[in-house]
Amino acid sequence: MLHLQIHSEHFTNPLYLESGRILEPYDIMYETYGVLNEAKDNVIVICHALTGSHHAAGTYEGDNKAGWWDGLIGQGKAVDTDHFFVICTNVIGSCFGSTGPMSPRYPYTEPYRYKFPVVTILDMVKAQRILFDRLGIHSVHAIIGGSMGGMQALAFGVFFPNFAKNIIAMATTYATQPWAIAFNKVAQEAILKDPEFKNGYYDPKIIRETGLSGMAIGRMAGHISFLSPQSMDRKFGREYKRNDGLFELFGKFQVESYLEYNGYNFTKWFDPLSYLYITKAINIYDLSRGFDSLEEALHRVRANLYLISFESDLLFVPQEMEMIASTLESIGKENVTYIPIPSDYGHDAFLVEIDKIEHYVKDALWKKP
Amino acid sequence: MLHLQIHSEHFTNPLYLESGRILEPYDIMYETYGVLNEAKDNVIVICHALTGSHHAAGTYEGDNKAGWWDGLIGQGKAVDTDHFFVICTNVIGSCFGSTGPMSPRYPYTEPYRYKFPVVTILDMVKAQRILFDRLGIHSVHAIIGGSMGGMQALAFGVFFPNFAKNIIAMATTYATQPWAIAFNKVAQEAILKDPEFKNGYYDPKIIRETGLSGMAIGRMAGHISFLSPQSMDRKFGREYKRNDGLFELFGKFQVESYLEYNGYNFTKWFDPLSYLYITKAINIYDLSRGFDSLEEALHRVRANLYLISFESDLLFVPQEMEMIASTLESIGKENVTYIPIPSDYGHDAFLVEIDKIEHYVKDALWKKP
Repeated sequence: MLHLQIHSEHFTNPLYLESGRILEPYDIMYETYGVLNEAKDNVIVICHALTGSHHAAGTYEGDNKAGWWDGLIGQGKAVDTDHFFVICTNVIGSCFGSTGPMSPRYPYTEPYRYKFPVVTILDMVKAQRILFDRLGIHSVHAIIGGSMGGMQALAFGVFFPNFAKNIIAMATTYATQPWAIAFNKVAQEAILKDPEFKNGYYDPKIIRETGLSGMAIGRMAGHISFLSPQSMDRKFGREYKRNDGLFELFGKFQVESYLEYNGYNFTKWFDPLSYLYITKAINIYDLSRGFDSLEEALHRVRANLYLISFESDLLFVPQEMEMIASTLESIGKENVTYIPIPSDYGHDAFLVEIDKIEHYVKDALWKKP
Repeated sequence: MLHLQIHSEHFTNPLYLESGRILEPYDIMYETYGVLNEAKDNVIVICHALTGSHHAAGTYEGDNKAGWWDGLIGQGKAVDTDHFFVICTNVIGSCFGSTGPMSPRYPYTEPYRYKFPVVTILDMVKAQRILFDRLGIHSVHAIIGGSMGGMQALAFGVFFPNFAKNIIAMATTYATQPWAIAFNKVAQEAILKDPEFKNGYYDPKIIRETGLSGMAIGRMAGHISFLSPQSMDRKFGREYKRNDGLFELFGKFQVESYLEYNGYNFTKWFDPLSYLYITKAINIYDLSRGFDSLEEALHRVRANLYLISFESDLLFVPQEMEMIASTLESIGKENVTYIPIPSDYGHDAFLVEIDKIEHYVKDALWKKP
């Protein structure tokens, strides 16, 4: 049984942020799958990426799309909900129910907008930790995440070393590198310069109805960074739209149509201020912040760590994952498994190459100590 | 002696375009370096890339920047102007003096804007061929180009097989692949959606003075495609602007400053409609168009062909150059040299790794038949 449930928790105690600011009060939206056992030792935490949400698995009535990691999570799947109790929370700063820049700024009813504090990956992780505490879950069997979800998984490992037995981080890094920051910059700039964004004072209803071309353009750049030259070749080749003339200035290749469709569609379901805040969190992510070195940070990790990279990932290149593995090796950590996966799907591989990762995930979850 | 000269030629005969449309009349702006010998057999043609110009070498009084390939062209350099007479023309469709979308649409004085016909790489090459004819140059010692310049060099080889003895094409392809088209799409969309672009009816003076954020955003995406994750790491790392706060939403990494500066500066010296037309020409570039296959197209090549690729080039990946070399090999062509260059500078390598390419260029130019 998937046993999908959706919940929201309200917190009135302040969340102390890495910046020194506070978030108070705040809500966390989350989904669970499977059933918590009596010993509460069958918990798996799933962490989502930039534009992901708490909806990681299952399909709601009336929806035509399953959760974003449905291939991995469910009955009889690698993260088997017949055995495990799985939790996925929407990160703070996002726009799917957890507190973000468009949430009302207590005690007012107006949204924060730019008054929302910059949150970090560590802040996202701390907020989750507090939620789990409230649920009486003080340690978990595993934390799994890809991309920004992998950053959270690693941050759990460094900052709450006794919390998770196993950590599986995919397609991620120890600190965001300039190539990824540059893609985020294009998106941020496109959002900020769109007059319909109204310097942050947009009406979200209007944006969702009529779209926000700046965010669409940013998402197009994002899609490039999620793919690879090879995967784009295979997916689109040089196919041209059937009724467009090759010598028409606005005639389109299929890849252009794809980017346009996905770019503009994105503005119907994601919030531009959340995009600015979450890309900021990704840009300033650095696992070694607050420590003298990455070695010192990683020295704190006690979980079994599984690092999965994808050969053609250009957003977080395999060398970044290798760097984490080799650093851990250099400080004598033995509970580290580095798994480079051959793939030409680019960064998206962690979402689409389920058949290549599922047995590694399963093995990690069932490994005898 | 560099012996830099700048010229413009006016043509009143129609240029028959690949689309079936005509361009009439038209101008071609070009520079020459060195001196044409009496036998007229010391000519080298240089072809420029997307935002390049006829100004390939030398420095004008008052300018602080030399031509874009100054490292390669000049007295005692690989393309030695003491020996060779070098010509570089601004392509039609561009905005540096050759006829483009902002040129007056004869017999009116108003610019073409969208009435300008889509031009192709072959059209750019034909226009140059007609210029050279007028100059009494009916064959040349070599044609050299990188990126879109390489496309032109290859098109010369296929469509005018008796024109050049040697062709050196770098960091280019046989047909533009979806990854490159996708980057162009981001830029095109950003330009088109900028209200200051006024659907093509902008005032170019205003754009050059106040900038066009859409084109700046597109250029930022372009800069990503010119670099590589490795070269960005080396160039910027995670350096943060000294006076910006890490937890300020608009605090900036150096890479963000770099993109912003170069993006906005670009709008001061390039025309947005030219950008749309030239990226269109690049997108629809396909050396095999009009032939049954790439084999059939390449079969026509008679020049000695030198194909130089750069390991980390993500815009035109080395496999695309290899494909040209292996296709030529498969049809029994023996005058082909494929030179893969180790480099982590990305696509920009053809402009910045002069020390790695100059001896290959020199060898090609001086090779005894």
